Amino acid sequence: MPIITLTTDFGLSDWFVGTTRGVILGLNPHATVVDITHGIPPGDVRAGAFAFAASYRYFPKGTIHVAVVDPGVGSQRRAIAVRTTRYIFVGPDNGILSFALANERVTECREITNRSLFLKAVSSTFHGRDVFAPVAARLSKGMFFGRLGPALKHISQIDWPEVKRGKATLHGAIVYIDQFGNGITNFPPNAIEDLGGAECIVFLGRKRLGPLNSFYQAVPRGRPVAVIGSTGFLEIAVNGGSAADQLGLKIGQRVAVKARAAYRHSSS
Amino acid sequence: MPIITLTTDFGLSDWFVGTTRGVILGLNPHATVVDITHGIPPGDVRAGAFAFAASYRYFPKGTIHVAVVDPGVGSQRRAIAVRTTRYIFVGPDNGILSFALANERVTECREITNRSLFLKAVSSTFHGRDVFAPVAARLSKGMFFGRLGPALKHISQIDWPEVKRGKATLHGAIVYIDQFGNGITNFPPNAIEDLGGAECIVFLGRKRLGPLNSFYQAVPRGRPVAVIGSTGFLEIAVNGGSAADQLGLKIGQRVAVKARAAYRHSSS
Amino acid sequence: MPIITLTTDFGLSDWFVGTTRGVILGLNPHATVVDITHGIPPGDVRAGAFAFAASYRYFPKGTIHVAVVDPGVGSQRRAIAVRTTRYIFVGPDNGILSFALANERVTECREITNRSLFLKAVSSTFHGRDVFAPVAARLSKGMFFGRLGPALKHISQIDWPEVKRGKATLHGAIVYIDQFGNGITNFPPNAIEDLGGAECIVFLGRKRLGPLNSFYQAVPRGRPVAVIGSTGFLEIAVNGGSAADQLGLKIGQRVAVKARAAYRHSSS
Repeated sequence: MPIITLTTDFGLSDWFVGTTRGVILGLNPHATVVDITHGIPPGDVRAGAFAFAASYRYFPKGTIHVAVVDPGVGSQRRAIAVRTTRYIFVGPDNGILSFALANERVTECREITNRSLFLKAVSSTFHGRDVFAPVAARLSKGMFFGRLGPALKHISQIDWPEVKRGKATLHGAIVYIDQFGNGITNFPPNAIEDLGGAECIVFLGRKRLGPLNSFYQAVPRGRPVAVIGSTGFLEIAVNGGSAADQLGLKIGQRVAVKARAAYRHSSS
Repeated sequence: MPIITLTTDFGLSDWFVGTTRGVILGLNPHATVVDITHGIPPGDVRAGAFAFAASYRYFPKGTIHVAVVDPGVGSQRRAIAVRTTRYIFVGPDNGILSFALANERVTECREITNRSLFLKAVSSTFHGRDVFAPVAARLSKGMFFGRLGPALKHISQIDWPEVKRGKATLHGAIVYIDQFGNGITNFPPNAIEDLGGAECIVFLGRKRLGPLNSFYQAVPRGRPVAVIGSTGFLEIAVNGGSAADQLGLKIGQRVAVKARAAYRHSSS
Repeated sequence: MPIITLTTDFGLSDWFVGTTRGVILGLNPHATVVDITHGIPPGDVRAGAFAFAASYRYFPKGTIHVAVVDPGVGSQRRAIAVRTTRYIFVGPDNGILSFALANERVTECREITNRSLFLKAVSSTFHGRDVFAPVAARLSKGMFFGRLGPALKHISQIDWPEVKRGKATLHGAIVYIDQFGNGITNFPPNAIEDLGGAECIVFLGRKRLGPLNSFYQAVPRGRPVAVIGSTGFLEIAVNGGSAADQLGLKIGQRVAVKARAAYRHSSS
């Protein structure tokens, strides 16, 4: 029972996800199709790449991951499939896979060009259904990877915004805002441990939010709280509320973490 | 592993879809239940009929399709099941199935009256769970179609708005607006081919949108674009944006397609 | 093919549900995972408990129900598993399970403390993925219930607001508003039968809504209607519209049902 995951911006109001599943099940009735999410903001490849990177590794080895946020559908952008030591990845070559692939050991990478693998009629606006779904279904049945098309040396990347290290201070940014209004930053956990772990103070722009805490309810209801979130990144939240609403969080907003000692020193 | 699809206006915020699935799996643990969508606007039978017609044929032969947009639930409206050469369809007799059935060869049509097939307690407001789910589950186990109830000669239809042909001009309308804000029209693809294919100009009301294009990014970001969409119908979109918001699209709004030559002539 | 249901406030915009499913399928590829809903308002344990109680019993015997609305995640609140004569229930010990368990015969109740059953890295903000998903998956494979942790005598309860009986009048309240804008009350069906069944008049605050009806379309389009809803409770709706919008329904708003004779008498 192979697993095929779907990460898209198709939304759930129309029939787009349903038909994608129908095509997969028509070709492989034994596939288990799992929605990671279809709620990526339309055409937001960066948000899709982040959501996908945050989730794909919770699936068992052998899973086929399909990620389709595809504003260039129908244009000359390539369709690709990437095989790593653990998974197969399928999607448009626009960077949607790049944050995930940064953690993987890639063994093979191909452009998907073999039209005999697609639906007979390929629309110019819905390759999720017409190209990626049938390709994923055929791969889930054990189809030889080389049938997809020619090998590729390079695929498109999106730059990951790196944390900058100052003297006892780290400078990063909000990279994703989830539906609870939590702002996920680009501070990985070991970066903060290097700075003294819980012994540090988090700033949103110039506003002091307070020390790193272990969980949301460590602060009173309605107050901001910085925690290591479930993605492993530092998160800015409000206990029982929405940090996005209450603090006006924006993607790209600057966040700093200062070692407590350094902060005391500099503020004295 | 029979497939049962669900197309409803139940939404995903409450437990309505979950209980419908629970009832099906309780009667047939081997069924694969697939959501086409639960996002039809509440009670909008026409939108449900369109979404269902756009999606049902992507499922393999033998699929049992359940479509429930049912503002008349609990009243005297009939429940029906229709068997065609490829599928079984189940739903209220209010036209929700009619756009799909227009493409099918119907072999048998029955009113669902056999209460022994329903849940023991049938509510007056949720026949998706109490009537249609158990009936679909039993059919997926191979139950004799004739057990449902008496044969029917006629079922309810919704009129499909036909495109009108003028001299080198076709007159149609927006019939569905998807969640991306794309306006789907009632122009089928061969109608436009008859007019000269790409050699035609699309008008929204009196506003000239431009020629038919092959994909969204054929125009600059933020500009309107007319393409043959994934349903096969002419679609009015905005590259990277929402045509519904930007052009103020409404269901029923007039759209015209003119042969380019005719347009040049008439505008001279 | 064991069934595992999920009832959460994770929403569908991010990857939270997808990763929860991935963890379950990684541990038990044969599990059938069913979403009851992920649309509980964030942190609203009472709404979650109601939605869960309205749905869990439509699943077959042996189903493992996971309900996670968990504002206290990462704090000292306990994780629990409860076994009844029909089901297993898993969730935080904050009352989310209590409305459902009021209908069940509990046979065993345990705190979940055995960390060897969890994901290796347990976050402080997402126990749905890291604790409850792997525990449910292991239970679905037949794991001995006692391995979870120590037996518990008492678990947290949320009070159910009881209907109050006056002389020929029942006093209750709106306890849940669904996405159609229907207001579900705490009047159970037999309470109304005791009062004379259809022979009674429903009041919202001081406003007379009219007699109990059998279905939505029993009143003209756009008019309020009181029916026995699909949960078995009295519901206040508007035919073809939203009672929440049109009548300004609020959780906790008072509703009264008067025997018709009594009402005539009192209003004379």
